[in-house]
Amino acid sequence: MSPDSAPPVLIVGSMAFDDLQLPSTTATDVIGGAATYASLATSLFAPARIVAVVGDDFPESTLEDLRHRGINTDGVWRADGKTFRWSGRYSENLSSRKTLDTQLNVFADFRPVLPDAYRDSQFVLLANIHPALQLEVLDQVTGPRYVAADTMNFWIEKERPTLDRVLSRIDTLVINDEELRQLAGEHNLKKAARATRSLGPRRLIVKRGEYGAMLFDDHGLFFAPAYPLDEEIDPTGAGDTFAGALLGTLASQGDLSPQALRRALLTASSVASFCVEDVGTRRLQTISSEDATARLDSLQALVSLEL
Amino acid sequence: MSPDSAPPVLIVGSMAFDDLQLPSTTATDVIGGAATYASLATSLFAPARIVAVVGDDFPESTLEDLRHRGINTDGVWRADGKTFRWSGRYSENLSSRKTLDTQLNVFADFRPVLPDAYRDSQFVLLANIHPALQLEVLDQVTGPRYVAADTMNFWIEKERPTLDRVLSRIDTLVINDEELRQLAGEHNLKKAARATRSLGPRRLIVKRGEYGAMLFDDHGLFFAPAYPLDEEIDPTGAGDTFAGALLGTLASQGDLSPQALRRALLTASSVASFCVEDVGTRRLQTISSEDATARLDSLQALVSLEL
Repeated sequence: MSPDSAPPVLIVGSMAFDDLQLPSTTATDVIGGAATYASLATSLFAPARIVAVVGDDFPESTLEDLRHRGINTDGVWRADGKTFRWSGRYSENLSSRKTLDTQLNVFADFRPVLPDAYRDSQFVLLANIHPALQLEVLDQVTGPRYVAADTMNFWIEKERPTLDRVLSRIDTLVINDEELRQLAGEHNLKKAARATRSLGPRRLIVKRGEYGAMLFDDHGLFFAPAYPLDEEIDPTGAGDTFAGALLGTLASQGDLSPQALRRALLTASSVASFCVEDVGTRRLQTISSEDATARLDSLQALVSLEL
Repeated sequence: MSPDSAPPVLIVGSMAFDDLQLPSTTATDVIGGAATYASLATSLFAPARIVAVVGDDFPESTLEDLRHRGINTDGVWRADGKTFRWSGRYSENLSSRKTLDTQLNVFADFRPVLPDAYRDSQFVLLANIHPALQLEVLDQVTGPRYVAADTMNFWIEKERPTLDRVLSRIDTLVINDEELRQLAGEHNLKKAARATRSLGPRRLIVKRGEYGAMLFDDHGLFFAPAYPLDEEIDPTGAGDTFAGALLGTLASQGDLSPQALRRALLTASSVASFCVEDVGTRRLQTISSEDATARLDSLQALVSLEL
């Protein structure tokens, strides 16, 4: 199925400027945010619809670029003020990062309002924002077929009751291993997964960075390796890229079978690896769905006994 | 092939008493050592031959138990003095450990002497000991078909020229990711693997604990996941178990094709997971090759698109 003919994926999340201190370079005013990364990844496989807010400093040309990729930006609201800004420093080997500064700016007062044309979205990705806003988005879609959500340590700690309401209304939670452990209060991943799935999501996807991703569902456990890179430049947004590619693939396949989920997990891992190859969204903007397919083949070869 | 009819695997390494401070329990005088773990794992698939040294405090009944499993202990020398002892404390989630004490004891003066009947060994595992002793073992075998070696940070740092001579004479280096990075002076695993293979070993296997293991060879890269456990008790010896199962499987298969190596990697990962389920070698002593096969099936299901 070509991206144009697949059902669109609704994505709510941040759009941002990032200031990145990376081992190989320092970059300021990098266009980032979960919705940006996720929608670029989705657009390889299906149309995307973004709900987000930007300030008056956000370049119209960026939105125009997104639209050229089949991403609907009618739900990107332009508010008076500055765009959300995140500043972080990565460790020498990229294995950890430290937030240096977060300026919510126009994001502080953001209430997601869906354009009417978005309400019929069947595939929904609630990227990492306040769980109350994730609920507001869910309240505005009429009958979603598949909803996945991300979250982060801050909401797990500070907004647990609201987050629990989100968990009760989604199909798939997509979080990293440390967030899972925090959410479940349990270090063992199998036990933590069981506890978390009992809160609502039938499926749980655990992102483990360079170690790949795991899917827990009614059919057991599935493991997708990460694609090993010769050069890792910037992991910012790789998790959002993963989630966007996952939703795009599922929408494109039009199939939510356990096998389809497993295939989508491998595709998501493949696409996420591209993200790390350059600063910000730069690499994502240059790849085609053919590139993604080729990398998927390489990734599958990693676990194949055939040569 | 039944374990009895496979060609034997020669294993040189430590036999030890371990004092373990684990999150779930504290255990003293636990029978350990690389040769012990490795030979138990090998014995599931092929006969093992140990070269090692123990003190006069090492229980004869343990050696007797090993012999009952098809492990030849004619090369286990009993010296006057105390057996090698290692004492360590694991972190709350088992992700790291600290050596509290190492007493070399009889291991300090150990020079491996192979019984004549060992010299024809075709499959050789040089577990983690001084690289000079690994070379002495190699000098005593007449025509090995497959040699794998392990090492550790201490030898990488202190005995690099000798270790380099080992590397030039082995087929496969089996080390963990941090050791690989140290050996190559390079964080990126693909680059580090390339640099390390250029020193001699055609094949490199990188152990990554709960994240599985990777094989780098002329045919590319292969990934074996770790089997996720419901309860992790004691990771001591899991790496040695992995190496022992790898060699045992290869000997049993009688096949060193790239496919055979990949199958052996999965089997090794399966068997290593048992090791973690109880303190010391306790769990390893209770499993059968059927248990190992069943877990291998479970492990392969983790990366299979079939359900």
